[in-house]
Amino acid sequence: MNSVTLPIVGHMCSPFREKFGIPRQPNLVNIESYIEMVEPYNDLLAFEGIEQFSHLWLIWQFHDNKNQETATKFRPQVRPPRLGGNEKIGVFATRSMYRPAPIGLSVVRLNKVEKVGKSLRVYVTGSDLLNGTPILDIKPYIQYSDAIVDAQSGYAQAEPERKSVLWSENALSTQQSLFKNKEINAQYLDELEQVLSLDPRPAYQEDPERVYKMKFSNFDIHFKVNGNVITVVDMVKDTSLV
Amino acid sequence: MNSVTLPIVGHMCSPFREKFGIPRQPNLVNIESYIEMVEPYNDLLAFEGIEQFSHLWLIWQFHDNKNQETATKFRPQVRPPRLGGNEKIGVFATRSMYRPAPIGLSVVRLNKVEKVGKSLRVYVTGSDLLNGTPILDIKPYIQYSDAIVDAQSGYAQAEPERKSVLWSENALSTQQSLFKNKEINAQYLDELEQVLSLDPRPAYQEDPERVYKMKFSNFDIHFKVNGNVITVVDMVKDTSLV
Repeated sequence: MNSVTLPIVGHMCSPFREKFGIPRQPNLVNIESYIEMVEPYNDLLAFEGIEQFSHLWLIWQFHDNKNQETATKFRPQVRPPRLGGNEKIGVFATRSMYRPAPIGLSVVRLNKVEKVGKSLRVYVTGSDLLNGTPILDIKPYIQYSDAIVDAQSGYAQAEPERKSVLWSENALSTQQSLFKNKEINAQYLDELEQVLSLDPRPAYQEDPERVYKMKFSNFDIHFKVNGNVITVVDMVKDTSLV
Repeated sequence: MNSVTLPIVGHMCSPFREKFGIPRQPNLVNIESYIEMVEPYNDLLAFEGIEQFSHLWLIWQFHDNKNQETATKFRPQVRPPRLGGNEKIGVFATRSMYRPAPIGLSVVRLNKVEKVGKSLRVYVTGSDLLNGTPILDIKPYIQYSDAIVDAQSGYAQAEPERKSVLWSENALSTQQSLFKNKEINAQYLDELEQVLSLDPRPAYQEDPERVYKMKFSNFDIHFKVNGNVITVVDMVKDTSLV
């Protein structure tokens, strides 16, 4: 089979520690994360002039796909969550991760490029990438050619609706003591609520008593969903992290 | 070195038979071209639903780079033609083809997907891809997340200016006889003039008497440039094609 081999130039460092909870497109949540560049790409010269651009494209690998290694057969159709997860559609009509070349494409806001010793970090806002995601390329966003204002996007035309996020009394008291101990801050809470408001559940699950768990940064967040309201019922330190 | 291997899913068929003349971004010229999908990706099921999208992203390989095989050393800076070709800038602040992962990213208009026997063709308008370019992925353009209307793009903020295209008497008479013999048509002439109006010359060459040659579809186009005027001086059948 004809193929192309591409280098990994960096890795994403983000609060998304598992796929559950990651927004389905970039720029739906204002979360800051950074790309840690790999040697020899950790060279400030390679970023000279990048500050002229407000936005960047990240081209990255869906590295955490199930059965990626063993799936040799091409599956031409997928069931996108946007369509409720039960309607099939052509894989090239989706941004599904289960595609021939497992490449993701995300536009992010550029905050700054910072060199600390040998480490070079590209800070961005709005990324939808799992922590550890391999980055294949970083390109400037060119407004006149990339921004197609009147593009029609069919089933993905509208932004997903947001739900309200409430806290149970129990979760609120945990939140407040974590806040006092400086284990979390206002930015963490804001980012967490943005992620929850997008309703991270799989499509078509409607049990208001079911408790879902989502890892976000170094906490396990427990929540319920009832109609348009998400209620945080607990937040627990993630013991899988040292 | 850590790397990722990706399959080639198709190849571009376009009138751009050499790099000289290719617009520096997609959507500057309204040229129709098509992607010929490779087996097993030539499956109509894989495109079901794609007609809901007006635009697509193509992710493709810069396959015609000089010294690609032998260039093992990372070069952090390039000289983009947009800056006149003599100013250096970081490679990640450009869309240069000479980058660690030689991947191109282009948005194109979707015209139609057509299956003829075993051949599956994705017809698009606005592509800036060389004939034969390997395609790694096709993704729908999602307007709400991809179109950043107020993005700042620094040195690449404005579209390139267009020049006027004139025909010498000699070239005009060749054009008219080719037209009569149905070797070219109005669409070909329109597309050719769009490409020429973007001034395909290398930066900072200002000899009004110099004749440049550009292959476009099955003709060699000879032209001169004087200030804001491009003059076609001849068009000759490309003898390298059978």
